[in-house]
Amino acid sequence: MDLLQYLTVKNIDFLSKREDVIPYIRDASYFTGELPIAVVLPKNENEISEILTKCYEENIKVVARGGGTSLTGSSISLKGSVVISMLRLNRILEFSGGDRYVHVQAGVRIDDLNSYLQSKGFLYPPDPASSLASTVGGTISTNAGGLRGTYYGSTKEWILGLGIVLADGRIIRTGGKILKRSAGYDLTSLFVGAEGTLGIIFDAYLKIVPRIENFTRIMVFFRKAEDMGKAIYQIKERGLNPLSAEFTDKISMNIISRISGIPVPDGSEVLLIIDIPILSGNEYEKFIQIIKNSNPTGIKSLNAEESEVVYKARKGLYSSLLNEREREGEYIIIGDVVVPSSEVPEALNETRDLIEKFGLKISLFGHIGDGNIHANVFTNINSNEEMKKAEKFLEEFGDIALRHNGSVSAEHGIGFEKKELLIREFIYKKSIVNMEIMKSIKKILDPKNILNPGKVFDL
Amino acid sequence: MDLLQYLTVKNIDFLSKREDVIPYIRDASYFTGELPIAVVLPKNENEISEILTKCYEENIKVVARGGGTSLTGSSISLKGSVVISMLRLNRILEFSGGDRYVHVQAGVRIDDLNSYLQSKGFLYPPDPASSLASTVGGTISTNAGGLRGTYYGSTKEWILGLGIVLADGRIIRTGGKILKRSAGYDLTSLFVGAEGTLGIIFDAYLKIVPRIENFTRIMVFFRKAEDMGKAIYQIKERGLNPLSAEFTDKISMNIISRISGIPVPDGSEVLLIIDIPILSGNEYEKFIQIIKNSNPTGIKSLNAEESEVVYKARKGLYSSLLNEREREGEYIIIGDVVVPSSEVPEALNETRDLIEKFGLKISLFGHIGDGNIHANVFTNINSNEEMKKAEKFLEEFGDIALRHNGSVSAEHGIGFEKKELLIREFIYKKSIVNMEIMKSIKKILDPKNILNPGKVFDL
Repeated sequence: MDLLQYLTVKNIDFLSKREDVIPYIRDASYFTGELPIAVVLPKNENEISEILTKCYEENIKVVARGGGTSLTGSSISLKGSVVISMLRLNRILEFSGGDRYVHVQAGVRIDDLNSYLQSKGFLYPPDPASSLASTVGGTISTNAGGLRGTYYGSTKEWILGLGIVLADGRIIRTGGKILKRSAGYDLTSLFVGAEGTLGIIFDAYLKIVPRIENFTRIMVFFRKAEDMGKAIYQIKERGLNPLSAEFTDKISMNIISRISGIPVPDGSEVLLIIDIPILSGNEYEKFIQIIKNSNPTGIKSLNAEESEVVYKARKGLYSSLLNEREREGEYIIIGDVVVPSSEVPEALNETRDLIEKFGLKISLFGHIGDGNIHANVFTNINSNEEMKKAEKFLEEFGDIALRHNGSVSAEHGIGFEKKELLIREFIYKKSIVNMEIMKSIKKILDPKNILNPGKVFDL
Repeated sequence: MDLLQYLTVKNIDFLSKREDVIPYIRDASYFTGELPIAVVLPKNENEISEILTKCYEENIKVVARGGGTSLTGSSISLKGSVVISMLRLNRILEFSGGDRYVHVQAGVRIDDLNSYLQSKGFLYPPDPASSLASTVGGTISTNAGGLRGTYYGSTKEWILGLGIVLADGRIIRTGGKILKRSAGYDLTSLFVGAEGTLGIIFDAYLKIVPRIENFTRIMVFFRKAEDMGKAIYQIKERGLNPLSAEFTDKISMNIISRISGIPVPDGSEVLLIIDIPILSGNEYEKFIQIIKNSNPTGIKSLNAEESEVVYKARKGLYSSLLNEREREGEYIIIGDVVVPSSEVPEALNETRDLIEKFGLKISLFGHIGDGNIHANVFTNINSNEEMKKAEKFLEEFGDIALRHNGSVSAEHGIGFEKKELLIREFIYKKSIVNMEIMKSIKKILDPKNILNPGKVFDL
């Protein structure tokens, strides 16, 4: 029985017409995949198990897909693959504020989850800019970060347990609804950030926290990125914790100014948007004192309405930049490096020089509170020459991170895009053995290499 | 060349006389191991690498040992093994408050690390009761919890990167001095909680936080454990976060009262020691309101001096209980279960009934803020009958946790002691496949099964 017959017999919904499956060859990255045999729309883990049982038998590649918001090509379809859309697994199964967990299916969107939790006074901290569309399963699979990362850390810190369908269709559960556990190897963490190459996550127990409602959002403008970086470092050195600390360069600053109507002070080249938690009164004063001593060109404290508009404008920056494209075939390739806070000023200086050297149109922004810098490189993806130049830039941008004790991927994962960069990082860190170990683990859990093959690494 | 000759040639310090190595057949558990060939005292990772290279060639078992505070037999020596004492790797290598990390060797003791960090205004949160003696490497290897776990989580959430010597002597590094990373599988977490069965951790980048200095410690006495459990649940449900919340039964409460001189109100059977962070003024009021409505027999707010004495008495409870032994051969076997907060009241009731049924001398205490309950069972380890009874008790105690969505091991690891319980947990949770996966990973990283064999599981 061929796959489509099997799906029909099993009563599993699927799409297989060319026009229906073609959208799945793309995600939010600039990559184009190849046509899948089918896009299946399972309603539960048992259907996923049935799909994988068949695909395993028949050596059919499987690509799990949440919101399709990957910026590295993690979720694009592969030739002859089955795409498993997780969007029907969209139920919040259980919530317990006192136990501090929520149990959700993998296809629940992050913003939907947090709307629900907000009504209960709680929060699931991971907050990628794509949270409107990205899903629990997708963000777990890329260990997503986001705007609140500087205060709350990345996704990996919030996963208590997972439901997973293995390559051969077997269903396992790791962890559970408990806040601590020391019982064998940490299999939960193994699947976090694995980009669907080790198993398909169908549900998760997520740790939640009470919302911090009381904070002030301020915009701080600087002449020099270096001053902004030093300010953040001093804030953290003094033991202060911003709820979020976002920076942008001039291009992105102007977009936020345009959307919010908040004017940019003369001479400003860099914007910092910082959320200051109001716990005790004098914390705010400590923050402001450091900022005032950091040569700002202006400080603007936001009211509730401005606060909301600026937050949305920041979250929408990538989309806004896409709207700034002027040429046929132009796309944005996005770098995603991270360095320790103390290295941010120098890393930003070197990046500025690098941008000058390459003469590319690039906008920088990032979650500077945890040292995460994104370089948005405008590139005509149909031009070999431009693509090579962009890739060379991103390689050297990655090298800046490596020289400053950082990593080439902070929160977007590896996908198709950063496979070479990942190898580069392991070589730089004299840790190429880590790649061997990763491949060995892959072979245990996916012996036929059917799960999202060619993503993260090539076997 | 035999091992001892090799060590001599390589100029690696070791002990091999019977009287010198005999202390290493024990740790803080009731288990007795067997005589090792040698106890080596490496000064750095290169020496560890040389030791493992030789042991790998010669199929010699290797047991890494930190403070020897394991309660499950993780660190006892095995017949013909080499024990690697990590205590000479005791340097704090680098500290950066602004970058929020400290880089330390594995043999640094937790209290020494926190004394150092305190002088800088920072804290490494994991806080096992054994922190005076336990080490960074040992606590990582058991994913230790402790008193601050309810606020800060377990050890796994604080590990940014590791230096590891693999079974064959190769040295790898995972993660690093950055706060986020999405670059391949999470190899760091794989070694956390692996109890030295996958590699030897020689140093670590640890995430640190600013100290919260402003808190009030209160003792709350109750007639019923159930009321205490409900109070904690309500506290968490209302979005309040205690810095720690420790409970004890009457036996341990009386010890703390004796040490501190603080009297126990009439009719009290249970003690709760709770640290309330003073962030805004009214949080304290919210805490106290819930506690007052929970039928306490007394509430005692502690001054700075009492606070210190009570904290130390709580941390020293296990030692104090050991001092209460009255019979030849008597020891304490300690259960370490965890359940969600909402299940604590019922789990404690069932545990009380179980203790009555078995008629054993048992004291209960635990980190109740995260649902972790320890049962300290007084047992004559030379009596087969008593040992069987104690083991049967711990099995049923574990079953209570499993029925209430918990785990048989919260923070002590598996070691020798809980291997059967771990299998029981996987079977109960229909997750025995997880054990297969663990064993497959073990085979990748330790193909000759020389690293702490027979701990966690039997291959």
